[in-house]
Amino acid sequence: MRIGALEAGGTKMVCAVATEQGEILERESFPTTTPEESIPSLTSWFAERNVDALGIGAFGPTCVDPKSPDFGTILETPKLPWRGYALRAAFVDALDVPVGYDTDVNVACLGEATFGDSRGIADLVYVTIGTGVGAGVMCGGQLLHGMLHPEAGHMLLNRVPGDEGPCVCPSHDSCLEGLAAGPSIERRWGAKGFELADRPEVWELEASYLAQMCYNLVLCYSPRRIILGGGVMHQEQLYPLVREKTLRYLGGYITAPELEDIDSYIAAPSLSDNQGVLGCVELGRRALAAASA
Amino acid sequence: MRIGALEAGGTKMVCAVATEQGEILERESFPTTTPEESIPSLTSWFAERNVDALGIGAFGPTCVDPKSPDFGTILETPKLPWRGYALRAAFVDALDVPVGYDTDVNVACLGEATFGDSRGIADLVYVTIGTGVGAGVMCGGQLLHGMLHPEAGHMLLNRVPGDEGPCVCPSHDSCLEGLAAGPSIERRWGAKGFELADRPEVWELEASYLAQMCYNLVLCYSPRRIILGGGVMHQEQLYPLVREKTLRYLGGYITAPELEDIDSYIAAPSLSDNQGVLGCVELGRRALAAASA
Repeated sequence: MRIGALEAGGTKMVCAVATEQGEILERESFPTTTPEESIPSLTSWFAERNVDALGIGAFGPTCVDPKSPDFGTILETPKLPWRGYALRAAFVDALDVPVGYDTDVNVACLGEATFGDSRGIADLVYVTIGTGVGAGVMCGGQLLHGMLHPEAGHMLLNRVPGDEGPCVCPSHDSCLEGLAAGPSIERRWGAKGFELADRPEVWELEASYLAQMCYNLVLCYSPRRIILGGGVMHQEQLYPLVREKTLRYLGGYITAPELEDIDSYIAAPSLSDNQGVLGCVELGRRALAAASA
Repeated sequence: MRIGALEAGGTKMVCAVATEQGEILERESFPTTTPEESIPSLTSWFAERNVDALGIGAFGPTCVDPKSPDFGTILETPKLPWRGYALRAAFVDALDVPVGYDTDVNVACLGEATFGDSRGIADLVYVTIGTGVGAGVMCGGQLLHGMLHPEAGHMLLNRVPGDEGPCVCPSHDSCLEGLAAGPSIERRWGAKGFELADRPEVWELEASYLAQMCYNLVLCYSPRRIILGGGVMHQEQLYPLVREKTLRYLGGYITAPELEDIDSYIAAPSLSDNQGVLGCVELGRRALAAASA
Protein backbone atom coordinates (compact mmCIF):
# COMPACT_ATOMS: atom_id res chain seq x y z
CA MET A 1 0.00 0.00 0.00
CA ARG A 2 1.13 3.54 -0.77
CA ILE A 3 -0.17 6.12 1.65
CA GLY A 4 -0.06 9.82 0.81
CA ALA A 5 0.64 12.41 3.48
CA LEU A 6 -0.08 16.13 3.26
CA GLU A 7 1.11 18.40 6.04
CA ALA A 8 -0.75 21.57 5.14
CA GLY A 9 0.97 24.42 6.94
CA GLY A 10 0.50 28.14 6.73
CA THR A 11 3.81 28.69 4.91
CA LYS A 12 4.49 25.37 3.17
CA MET A 13 2.74 22.22 2.09
CA VAL A 14 4.76 19.06 2.66
CA CYS A 15 3.75 16.12 0.48
CA ALA A 16 5.00 12.60 0.98
CA VAL A 17 4.34 9.02 0.02
CA ALA A 18 5.07 6.27 2.52
CA THR A 19 4.35 2.68 3.34
CA GLU A 20 1.84 1.80 6.05
CA GLN A 21 4.83 1.01 8.26
CA GLY A 22 5.95 4.63 8.05
CA GLU A 23 8.81 4.28 5.61
CA ILE A 24 8.90 7.55 3.67
CA LEU A 25 9.50 6.82 -0.02
CA GLU A 26 9.36 10.33 -1.42
CA ARG A 27 8.84 13.83 -0.14
CA GLU A 28 8.48 17.32 -1.60
CA SER A 29 7.53 20.79 -0.32
CA PHE A 30 5.51 23.52 -2.00
CA PRO A 31 4.91 27.08 -0.79
CA THR A 32 1.42 27.81 0.55
CA THR A 33 -0.01 30.58 -1.61
CA THR A 34 -3.72 30.45 -2.54
CA PRO A 35 -5.99 27.43 -3.04
CA GLU A 36 -6.28 28.23 -6.77
CA GLU A 37 -2.51 28.15 -7.17
CA SER A 38 -1.58 25.45 -4.67
CA ILE A 39 -4.23 22.77 -4.92
CA PRO A 40 -3.96 21.65 -8.57
CA SER A 41 -0.24 20.91 -8.30
CA LEU A 42 -0.78 19.11 -4.97
CA THR A 43 -3.59 16.89 -6.24
CA SER A 44 -1.54 16.07 -9.38
CA TRP A 45 1.45 15.21 -7.25
CA PHE A 46 -0.53 12.58 -5.35
CA ALA A 47 -2.46 11.38 -8.44
CA GLU A 48 0.78 10.73 -10.33
CA ARG A 49 2.03 8.66 -7.43
CA ASN A 50 -1.04 6.45 -7.32
CA VAL A 51 -1.67 6.64 -3.59
CA ASP A 52 -4.23 4.25 -2.09
CA ALA A 53 -5.24 6.70 0.62
CA LEU A 54 -4.30 10.13 1.93
CA GLY A 55 -3.93 11.69 5.37
CA ILE A 56 -4.05 15.49 5.78
CA GLY A 57 -2.88 17.49 8.79
CA ALA A 58 -4.08 21.07 8.34
CA PHE A 59 -3.48 24.45 9.92
CA GLY A 60 -6.41 25.68 11.97
CA PRO A 61 -8.97 26.61 12.81
CA THR A 62 -10.52 23.84 10.78
CA CYS A 63 -13.44 21.48 11.11
CA VAL A 64 -12.28 17.99 12.14
CA ASP A 65 -15.70 16.52 12.92
CA PRO A 66 -16.50 13.76 10.37
CA LYS A 67 -20.21 14.18 11.15
CA SER A 68 -20.24 17.86 10.19
CA PRO A 69 -21.01 19.11 6.67
CA ASP A 70 -17.92 21.32 7.14
CA PHE A 71 -15.57 18.37 7.77
CA GLY A 72 -12.22 19.22 6.25
CA THR A 73 -12.97 22.92 5.69
CA ILE A 74 -10.62 25.69 6.85
CA LEU A 75 -12.53 28.07 9.14
CA GLU A 76 -11.90 31.64 10.42
CA THR A 77 -8.20 31.79 9.57
CA PRO A 78 -6.39 35.12 9.12
CA LYS A 79 -5.01 33.58 5.87
CA LEU A 80 -7.94 35.01 3.93
CA PRO A 81 -7.69 33.07 0.62
CA TRP A 82 -8.10 29.86 2.63
CA ARG A 83 -11.04 30.93 4.76
CA GLY A 84 -13.97 28.63 4.07
CA TYR A 85 -11.94 26.49 1.65
CA ALA A 86 -13.03 22.81 1.55
CA LEU A 87 -9.54 21.37 1.67
CA ARG A 88 -10.36 17.70 2.25
CA ALA A 89 -13.11 17.71 -0.38
CA ALA A 90 -10.65 18.94 -3.03
CA PHE A 91 -8.53 15.81 -2.52
CA VAL A 92 -11.49 13.45 -2.22
CA ASP A 93 -12.79 14.76 -5.56
CA ALA A 94 -9.44 14.69 -7.34
CA LEU A 95 -8.08 11.39 -6.04
CA ASP A 96 -11.14 9.28 -5.25
CA VAL A 97 -9.36 7.50 -2.37
CA PRO A 98 -10.11 7.48 1.38
CA VAL A 99 -8.88 10.73 2.98
CA GLY A 100 -8.25 11.14 6.72
CA TYR A 101 -8.15 14.67 8.14
CA ASP A 102 -7.08 16.33 11.39
CA THR A 103 -5.15 19.35 12.65
CA ASP A 104 -1.41 19.75 12.06
CA VAL A 105 -0.69 19.42 15.79
CA ASN A 106 -2.95 16.41 16.27
CA VAL A 107 -1.17 14.59 13.43
CA ALA A 108 2.23 15.39 14.97
CA CYS A 109 0.93 13.89 18.22
CA LEU A 110 -0.37 10.85 16.33
CA GLY A 111 2.92 10.46 14.48
CA GLU A 112 4.90 10.34 17.74
CA ALA A 113 2.35 7.97 19.34
CA THR A 114 2.42 5.62 16.33
CA PHE A 115 5.99 5.65 15.02
CA GLY A 116 8.07 7.52 17.62
CA ASP A 117 9.51 6.98 21.08
CA SER A 118 6.02 7.49 22.49
CA ARG A 119 4.62 4.48 20.65
CA GLY A 120 1.93 2.94 22.83
CA ILE A 121 1.47 6.00 25.06
CA ALA A 122 -2.27 6.61 24.91
CA ASP A 123 -2.24 9.91 26.82
CA LEU A 124 0.12 12.25 25.09
CA VAL A 125 0.38 15.99 24.46
CA TYR A 126 2.46 17.38 21.59
CA VAL A 127 3.15 21.13 21.69
CA THR A 128 4.77 23.07 18.90
CA ILE A 129 6.32 26.40 19.89
CA GLY A 130 7.22 28.37 16.78
CA THR A 131 5.60 31.34 15.10
CA GLY A 132 2.56 30.29 17.13
CA VAL A 133 1.88 27.75 19.83
CA GLY A 134 -0.37 24.77 19.19
CA ALA A 135 -1.13 21.59 21.08
CA GLY A 136 -2.20 18.20 19.76
CA VAL A 137 -3.75 16.00 22.40
CA MET A 138 -4.39 12.28 22.66
CA CYS A 139 -6.53 11.04 25.56
CA GLY A 140 -7.11 7.33 26.10
CA GLY A 141 -5.81 6.65 22.60
CA GLN A 142 -8.22 9.10 20.91
CA LEU A 143 -7.19 12.43 19.41
CA LEU A 144 -9.09 15.18 21.21
CA HIS A 145 -11.51 17.21 19.09
CA GLY A 146 -14.60 18.33 21.01
CA MET A 147 -16.70 21.10 19.46
CA LEU A 148 -13.74 22.39 17.39
CA HIS A 149 -10.25 21.28 18.48
CA PRO A 150 -8.02 22.34 21.36
CA GLU A 151 -6.44 25.77 21.11
CA ALA A 152 -4.35 25.38 24.22
CA GLY A 153 -1.69 27.66 22.76
CA HIS A 154 -3.82 30.56 23.93
CA MET A 155 -4.20 29.50 27.57
CA LEU A 156 -3.79 32.25 30.16
CA LEU A 157 -0.38 32.57 31.78
CA ASN A 158 0.84 34.69 34.65
CA ARG A 159 3.24 37.36 33.55
CA VAL A 160 6.64 36.74 35.16
CA PRO A 161 7.37 39.66 37.54
CA GLY A 162 9.68 42.16 35.86
CA ASP A 163 8.87 41.05 32.31
CA GLU A 164 7.75 44.21 30.52
CA GLY A 165 7.65 42.60 27.08
CA PRO A 166 4.50 42.87 25.00
CA CYS A 167 1.90 40.13 24.66
CA VAL A 168 1.84 39.98 20.87
CA CYS A 169 -1.47 38.08 20.57
CA PRO A 170 -4.05 40.37 18.94
CA SER A 171 -6.91 38.72 20.87
CA HIS A 172 -5.57 38.26 24.41
CA ASP A 173 -3.65 40.25 27.04
CA SER A 174 -1.70 37.49 28.73
CA CYS A 175 -1.76 34.26 26.76
CA LEU A 176 0.88 31.62 26.07
CA GLU A 177 1.25 32.35 22.37
CA GLY A 178 1.38 36.09 22.97
CA LEU A 179 4.06 35.78 25.65
CA ALA A 180 6.18 32.85 24.49
CA ALA A 181 5.99 32.16 20.74
CA GLY A 182 8.82 33.15 18.40
CA PRO A 183 7.45 36.62 17.48
CA SER A 184 7.12 37.47 21.17
CA ILE A 185 10.78 36.58 21.78
CA GLU A 186 11.78 38.75 18.82
CA ARG A 187 9.69 41.74 19.96
CA ARG A 188 10.91 41.48 23.56
CA TRP A 189 14.63 41.09 22.85
CA GLY A 190 14.96 42.73 19.42
CA ALA A 191 16.43 39.66 17.75
CA LYS A 192 15.42 36.19 16.66
CA GLY A 193 15.80 33.25 19.01
CA PHE A 194 18.80 31.71 17.26
CA GLU A 195 20.64 35.05 17.51
CA LEU A 196 20.03 35.07 21.28
CA ALA A 197 21.38 31.61 22.02
CA ASP A 198 24.10 32.93 24.37
CA ARG A 199 21.79 35.17 26.45
CA PRO A 200 20.75 33.02 29.44
CA GLU A 201 18.16 35.57 30.63
CA VAL A 202 16.20 35.03 27.39
CA TRP A 203 15.86 31.31 28.02
CA GLU A 204 15.22 31.61 31.75
CA LEU A 205 12.20 33.76 31.00
CA GLU A 206 11.04 31.64 28.08
CA ALA A 207 11.36 28.50 30.20
CA SER A 208 9.23 30.08 32.93
CA TYR A 209 6.36 30.59 30.50
CA LEU A 210 6.74 27.13 29.01
CA ALA A 211 6.83 25.63 32.51
CA GLN A 212 3.57 27.41 33.40
CA MET A 213 2.17 25.83 30.26
CA CYS A 214 3.43 22.35 31.19
CA TYR A 215 1.99 22.78 34.68
CA ASN A 216 -1.45 23.55 33.20
CA LEU A 217 -1.13 20.69 30.72
CA VAL A 218 -0.40 18.25 33.55
CA LEU A 219 -3.40 19.48 35.54
CA CYS A 220 -5.82 19.57 32.62
CA TYR A 221 -4.93 16.48 30.59
CA SER A 222 -2.91 14.37 33.02
CA PRO A 223 -0.80 13.16 30.09
CA ARG A 224 1.78 10.39 30.43
CA ARG A 225 4.23 12.49 28.42
CA ILE A 226 4.54 16.02 27.00
CA ILE A 227 6.55 16.50 23.81
CA LEU A 228 7.83 20.01 23.08
CA GLY A 229 8.65 20.70 19.44
CA GLY A 230 8.77 23.62 17.01
CA GLY A 231 11.42 26.15 16.06
CA VAL A 232 11.78 27.77 19.49
CA MET A 233 12.69 24.38 20.98
CA HIS A 234 15.72 24.17 18.70
CA GLN A 235 17.30 26.07 21.61
CA GLU A 236 17.90 22.81 23.43
CA GLN A 237 19.05 24.53 26.60
CA LEU A 238 15.32 25.09 27.19
CA TYR A 239 14.52 21.46 28.02
CA PRO A 240 16.31 21.16 31.38
CA LEU A 241 15.09 24.61 32.41
CA VAL A 242 11.47 23.82 31.55
CA ARG A 243 11.63 20.48 33.37
CA GLU A 244 13.03 21.99 36.55
CA LYS A 245 10.58 24.90 36.60
CA THR A 246 7.58 22.68 35.84
CA LEU A 247 8.33 20.59 38.92
CA ARG A 248 8.68 23.80 40.93
CA TYR A 249 5.29 25.11 39.75
CA LEU A 250 3.67 21.75 40.56
CA GLY A 251 5.00 22.08 44.11
CA GLY A 252 4.67 18.33 44.72
CA TYR A 253 0.92 18.54 44.23
CA ILE A 254 0.73 15.74 41.66
CA THR A 255 2.53 12.51 42.44
CA ALA A 256 2.87 9.98 39.66
CA PRO A 257 5.68 7.64 38.62
CA GLU A 258 5.88 9.39 35.22
CA LEU A 259 6.82 12.71 36.86
CA GLU A 260 9.69 11.09 38.73
CA ASP A 261 11.41 10.59 35.38
CA ILE A 262 11.03 14.20 34.28
CA ASP A 263 13.62 13.84 31.49
CA SER A 264 11.35 11.45 29.62
CA TYR A 265 8.17 13.13 30.83
CA ILE A 266 8.99 16.43 29.12
CA ALA A 267 10.66 15.25 25.94
CA ALA A 268 11.88 16.40 22.54
CA PRO A 269 10.26 15.03 19.36
CA SER A 270 11.82 11.74 18.29
CA LEU A 271 11.13 11.66 14.55
CA SER A 272 13.51 14.29 13.08
CA ASP A 273 10.73 16.66 12.06
CA ASN A 274 8.86 13.84 10.30
CA GLN A 275 6.29 13.53 13.11
CA GLY A 276 3.67 15.51 11.16
CA VAL A 277 4.12 13.62 7.91
CA LEU A 278 4.12 10.28 9.73
CA GLY A 279 0.95 11.20 11.60
CA CYS A 280 -0.65 11.93 8.22
CA VAL A 281 0.44 8.48 7.05
CA GLU A 282 -1.28 6.90 10.06
CA LEU A 283 -4.44 8.97 9.40
CA GLY A 284 -4.41 7.80 5.78
CA ARG A 285 -3.89 4.18 6.84
CA ARG A 286 -6.85 4.44 9.21
CA ALA A 287 -9.06 6.02 6.54
CA LEU A 288 -8.20 3.15 4.21
CA ALA A 289 -8.88 0.53 6.89
CA ALA A 290 -12.24 2.15 7.72
CA ALA A 291 -13.21 2.24 4.03
CA SER A 292 -12.26 -1.42 3.55
CA ALA A 293 -14.09 -2.58 6.69
CA MET B 1 -31.52 -4.94 38.24
CA ARG B 2 -30.64 -3.04 41.40
CA ILE B 3 -27.55 -0.87 41.05
CA GLY B 4 -25.77 0.49 44.10
CA ALA B 5 -24.20 3.95 44.07
CA LEU B 6 -21.62 5.28 46.50
CA GLU B 7 -20.60 8.91 46.30
CA ALA B 8 -17.57 8.87 48.58
CA GLY B 9 -16.91 12.45 49.58
CA GLY B 10 -14.50 13.95 52.06
CA THR B 11 -17.25 14.88 54.54
CA LYS B 12 -20.06 12.44 53.76
CA MET B 13 -20.72 9.15 52.05
CA VAL B 14 -23.95 9.09 50.05
CA CYS B 15 -25.33 5.60 49.43
CA ALA B 16 -28.18 4.86 47.05
CA VAL B 17 -29.90 2.05 45.22
CA ALA B 18 -31.41 2.72 41.81
CA THR B 19 -32.66 1.03 38.70
CA GLU B 20 -30.50 0.95 35.57
CA GLN B 21 -32.78 3.68 34.21
CA GLY B 22 -31.66 6.01 37.01
CA GLU B 23 -34.73 5.83 39.22
CA ILE B 24 -33.42 6.26 42.76
CA LEU B 25 -35.23 3.79 45.06
CA GLU B 26 -33.47 4.58 48.33
CA ARG B 27 -30.77 6.90 49.57
CA GLU B 28 -28.90 7.49 52.85
CA SER B 29 -25.90 9.55 53.97
CA PHE B 30 -23.19 8.68 56.47
CA PRO B 31 -20.42 10.96 57.80
CA THR B 32 -16.92 10.24 56.47
CA THR B 33 -14.77 9.41 59.48
CA THR B 34 -12.13 6.67 59.15
CA PRO B 35 -12.15 3.54 56.96
CA GLU B 36 -12.40 1.34 60.09
CA GLU B 37 -15.54 3.14 61.24
CA SER B 38 -17.16 3.94 57.91
CA ILE B 39 -16.63 0.94 55.67
CA PRO B 40 -18.37 -1.87 57.62
CA SER B 41 -21.66 0.04 57.83
CA LEU B 42 -21.43 1.00 54.15
CA THR B 43 -20.74 -2.53 52.92
CA SER B 44 -23.60 -3.85 55.13
CA TRP B 45 -25.94 -1.21 53.77
CA PHE B 46 -25.38 -2.41 50.19
CA ALA B 47 -25.28 -6.12 51.13
CA GLU B 48 -28.69 -5.88 52.84
CA ARG B 49 -30.12 -4.31 49.71
CA ASN B 50 -28.88 -7.06 47.43
CA VAL B 51 -27.35 -4.88 44.76
CA ASP B 52 -26.32 -6.55 41.50
CA ALA B 53 -23.47 -4.09 40.92
CA LEU B 54 -21.97 -0.98 42.48
CA GLY B 55 -20.53 2.27 41.16
CA ILE B 56 -18.21 4.38 43.31
CA GLY B 57 -17.28 8.02 42.78
CA ALA B 58 -14.44 8.86 45.15
CA PHE B 59 -12.62 11.94 46.37
CA GLY B 60 -9.10 12.27 45.00
CA PRO B 61 -6.36 11.85 44.40
CA THR B 62 -7.19 8.25 43.66
CA CYS B 63 -6.13 5.63 41.15
CA VAL B 64 -8.75 5.19 38.41
CA ASP B 65 -6.67 3.04 36.05
CA PRO B 66 -8.21 -0.45 35.87
CA LYS B 67 -4.85 -1.82 34.69
CA SER B 68 -2.98 -0.61 37.77
CA PRO B 69 -2.54 -2.72 40.92
CA ASP B 70 -3.64 0.42 42.80
CA PHE B 71 -7.00 0.68 40.96
CA GLY B 72 -9.55 2.00 43.44
CA THR B 73 -7.02 3.07 46.06
CA ILE B 74 -7.04 6.53 47.65
CA LEU B 75 -3.63 8.17 47.12
CA GLU B 76 -1.83 11.18 48.71
CA THR B 77 -4.89 12.77 50.32
CA PRO B 78 -4.54 15.17 53.26
CA LYS B 79 -7.30 13.03 54.91
CA LEU B 80 -4.66 10.85 56.52
CA PRO B 81 -6.74 7.84 57.64
CA TRP B 82 -7.74 7.29 54.01
CA ARG B 83 -4.29 7.59 52.48
CA GLY B 84 -3.43 4.32 50.74
CA TYR B 85 -6.82 2.80 51.54
CA ALA B 86 -8.04 0.28 48.94
CA LEU B 87 -11.59 1.58 48.76
CA ARG B 88 -12.84 -0.35 45.75
CA ALA B 89 -11.31 -3.61 46.96
CA ALA B 90 -13.22 -3.34 50.24
CA PHE B 91 -16.52 -3.41 48.35
CA VAL B 92 -15.42 -6.06 45.85
CA ASP B 93 -14.50 -8.32 48.79
CA ALA B 94 -17.63 -7.64 50.82
CA LEU B 95 -20.24 -7.70 48.07
CA ASP B 96 -18.81 -9.97 45.36
CA VAL B 97 -20.49 -7.98 42.57
CA PRO B 98 -18.97 -5.94 39.71
CA VAL B 99 -17.74 -2.57 41.01
CA GLY B 100 -17.11 0.46 38.78
CA TYR B 101 -14.85 3.21 40.10
CA ASP B 102 -13.98 6.79 39.13
CA THR B 103 -13.50 10.22 40.69
CA ASP B 104 -16.38 12.13 42.28
CA VAL B 105 -16.21 14.82 39.58
CA ASN B 106 -15.99 12.35 36.70
CA VAL B 107 -19.13 10.56 37.97
CA ALA B 108 -20.99 13.88 38.22
CA CYS B 109 -20.00 14.53 34.60
CA LEU B 110 -21.14 11.03 33.64
CA GLY B 111 -24.43 11.46 35.50
CA GLU B 112 -25.26 14.64 33.59
CA ALA B 113 -24.17 13.08 30.27
CA THR B 114 -26.30 9.96 30.87
CA PHE B 115 -29.42 11.12 32.71
CA GLY B 116 -29.38 14.92 32.59
CA ASP B 117 -29.97 17.74 30.13
CA SER B 118 -26.56 16.96 28.61
CA ARG B 119 -27.61 13.44 27.58
CA GLY B 120 -25.80 12.59 24.38
CA ILE B 121 -23.17 15.33 24.69
CA ALA B 122 -19.91 13.44 24.27
CA ASP B 123 -17.61 16.40 25.06
CA LEU B 124 -18.58 17.76 28.44
CA VAL B 125 -16.86 19.38 31.41
CA TYR B 126 -18.43 19.36 34.87
CA VAL B 127 -16.84 21.69 37.43
CA THR B 128 -17.72 21.76 41.10
CA ILE B 129 -16.84 24.96 42.96
CA GLY B 130 -17.23 24.43 46.68
CA THR B 131 -14.68 23.89 49.44
CA GLY B 132 -12.38 22.99 46.56
CA VAL B 133 -12.59 23.11 42.79
CA GLY B 134 -12.64 19.92 40.74
CA ALA B 135 -13.35 19.13 37.12
CA GLY B 136 -14.73 15.96 35.58
CA VAL B 137 -14.09 15.71 31.87
CA MET B 138 -15.60 13.64 29.08
CA CYS B 139 -13.88 13.73 25.67
CA GLY B 140 -15.39 11.89 22.72
CA GLY B 141 -17.65 9.97 25.10
CA GLN B 142 -14.78 8.76 27.31
CA LEU B 143 -14.09 10.03 30.83
CA LEU B 144 -10.61 11.54 30.87
CA HIS B 145 -8.08 9.80 33.13
CA GLY B 146 -4.55 9.90 31.76
CA MET B 147 -1.71 9.11 34.13
CA LEU B 148 -3.82 10.05 37.21
CA HIS B 149 -6.93 12.16 36.55
CA PRO B 150 -7.40 15.84 35.74
CA GLU B 151 -6.80 18.29 38.56
CA ALA B 152 -7.92 21.32 36.59
CA GLY B 153 -9.11 22.98 39.80
CA HIS B 154 -5.51 24.02 40.33
CA MET B 155 -4.89 25.66 36.94
CA LEU B 156 -3.05 28.98 37.01
CA LEU B 157 -5.18 32.12 36.90
CA ASN B 158 -4.25 35.76 36.56
CA ARG B 159 -4.91 37.75 39.65
CA VAL B 160 -7.55 40.38 38.94
CA PRO B 161 -5.91 43.83 39.35
CA GLY B 162 -6.76 45.27 42.75
CA ASP B 163 -7.60 41.92 44.35
CA GLU B 164 -5.39 41.73 47.43
CA GLY B 165 -7.07 38.59 48.81
CA PRO B 166 -4.91 35.60 49.68
CA CYS B 167 -4.47 32.54 47.49
CA VAL B 168 -5.45 29.93 50.06
CA CYS B 169 -3.97 26.93 48.23
CA PRO B 170 -1.06 25.55 50.27
CA SER B 171 0.76 24.39 47.10
CA HIS B 172 0.31 27.25 44.61
CA ASP B 173 0.55 31.05 44.52
CA SER B 174 -2.11 31.87 42.00
CA CYS B 175 -4.39 28.91 41.27
CA LEU B 176 -8.10 28.61 40.65
CA GLU B 177 -8.90 26.73 43.85
CA GLY B 178 -6.77 29.09 45.92
CA LEU B 179 -8.40 32.21 44.46
CA ALA B 180 -12.00 31.16 43.89
CA ALA B 181 -13.15 28.23 46.05
CA GLY B 182 -15.42 28.79 49.06
CA PRO B 183 -12.62 29.15 51.66
CA SER B 184 -10.98 31.82 49.51
CA ILE B 185 -14.21 33.85 49.38
CA GLU B 186 -14.51 33.55 53.15
CA ARG B 187 -10.92 34.64 53.80
CA ARG B 188 -11.12 37.55 51.36
CA TRP B 189 -14.46 38.98 52.52
CA GLY B 190 -14.66 37.76 56.12
CA ALA B 191 -17.96 35.94 55.67
CA LYS B 192 -19.34 32.89 53.90
CA GLY B 193 -20.73 33.17 50.39
CA PHE B 194 -24.39 32.91 51.37
CA GLU B 195 -23.92 35.81 53.82
CA LEU B 196 -22.50 37.94 51.00
CA ALA B 197 -25.33 37.43 48.53
CA ASP B 198 -26.17 41.16 48.38
CA ARG B 199 -22.59 42.35 47.80
CA PRO B 200 -22.21 42.66 43.99
CA GLU B 201 -18.43 43.27 44.18
CA VAL B 202 -17.99 39.78 45.67
CA TRP B 203 -19.65 38.11 42.68
CA GLU B 204 -18.06 40.36 40.07
CA LEU B 205 -14.65 39.25 41.29
CA GLU B 206 -15.64 35.61 41.70
CA ALA B 207 -17.13 35.60 38.20
CA SER B 208 -13.89 37.01 36.76
CA TYR B 209 -11.94 34.06 38.15
CA LEU B 210 -14.54 31.54 37.02
CA ALA B 211 -14.59 33.13 33.56
CA GLN B 212 -10.80 32.80 33.31
CA MET B 213 -11.34 29.15 34.17
CA CYS B 214 -14.06 28.71 31.52
CA TYR B 215 -11.82 30.41 28.96
CA ASN B 216 -9.04 27.90 29.70
CA LEU B 217 -11.49 25.00 29.66
CA VAL B 218 -12.75 26.05 26.20
CA LEU B 219 -9.19 26.29 24.87
CA CYS B 220 -7.94 23.06 26.43
CA TYR B 221 -10.88 20.67 26.07
CA SER B 222 -13.06 22.33 23.42
CA PRO B 223 -16.15 20.99 25.22
CA ARG B 224 -19.66 21.27 23.79
CA ARG B 225 -20.90 22.39 27.22
CA ILE B 226 -19.52 23.40 30.62
CA ILE B 227 -21.61 22.67 33.71
CA LEU B 228 -20.82 24.66 36.85
CA GLY B 229 -22.00 23.10 40.10
CA GLY B 230 -21.06 23.02 43.79
CA GLY B 231 -21.96 25.18 46.76
CA VAL B 232 -20.50 28.45 45.47
CA MET B 233 -22.75 28.23 42.38
CA HIS B 234 -25.83 28.34 44.62
CA GLN B 235 -25.30 32.08 44.16
CA GLU B 236 -27.15 31.95 40.89
CA GLN B 237 -26.32 35.55 40.03
CA LEU B 238 -22.91 34.14 39.07
CA TYR B 239 -24.11 32.39 35.90
CA PRO B 240 -24.88 35.45 33.75
CA LEU B 241 -21.72 37.19 34.98
CA VAL B 242 -19.51 34.20 34.19
CA ARG B 243 -21.08 33.81 30.74
CA GLU B 244 -20.54 37.44 29.80
CA LYS B 245 -16.97 37.56 31.09
CA THR B 246 -16.02 34.25 29.44
CA LEU B 247 -17.03 35.65 26.06
CA ARG B 248 -15.03 38.78 26.81
CA TYR B 249 -11.90 36.76 27.69
CA LEU B 250 -12.30 34.70 24.52
CA GLY B 251 -12.31 37.93 22.52
CA GLY B 252 -14.01 36.26 19.55
CA TYR B 253 -11.03 33.95 19.12
CA ILE B 254 -13.07 30.74 19.06
CA THR B 255 -16.11 30.64 16.81
CA ALA B 256 -18.49 27.72 17.23
CA PRO B 257 -22.27 27.45 17.11
CA GLU B 258 -22.31 26.20 20.72
CA LEU B 259 -20.77 29.47 21.97
CA GLU B 260 -23.48 31.48 20.28
CA ASP B 261 -25.95 30.02 22.75
CA ILE B 262 -23.90 30.89 25.81
CA ASP B 263 -26.82 30.33 28.23
CA SER B 264 -26.83 26.63 27.42
CA TYR B 265 -23.07 26.49 26.88
CA ILE B 266 -22.28 27.48 30.47
CA ALA B 267 -25.04 25.73 32.38
CA ALA B 268 -26.19 24.77 35.85
CA PRO B 269 -26.45 21.09 36.82
CA SER B 270 -29.81 19.61 35.81
CA LEU B 271 -30.22 16.73 38.25
CA SER B 272 -31.00 18.42 41.60
CA ASP B 273 -27.71 17.39 43.21
CA ASN B 274 -28.24 13.76 42.16
CA GLN B 275 -25.70 13.99 39.32
CA GLY B 276 -22.99 12.26 41.37
CA VAL B 277 -25.22 9.42 42.55
CA LEU B 278 -26.63 8.91 39.07
CA GLY B 279 -23.14 8.85 37.55
CA CYS B 280 -22.29 6.09 40.05
CA VAL B 281 -25.39 4.20 38.88
CA GLU B 282 -24.17 4.40 35.29
CA LEU B 283 -20.68 3.26 36.35
CA GLY B 284 -22.24 0.30 38.17
CA ARG B 285 -24.41 -0.54 35.18
CA ARG B 286 -21.35 -0.51 32.92
CA ALA B 287 -19.37 -2.71 35.32
CA LEU B 288 -22.24 -5.21 35.30
CA ALA B 289 -22.50 -5.15 31.51
CA ALA B 290 -18.74 -5.68 31.16
CA ALA B 291 -18.83 -8.59 33.63
CA SER B 292 -21.75 -10.22 31.78
CA ALA B 293 -20.19 -9.76 28.34
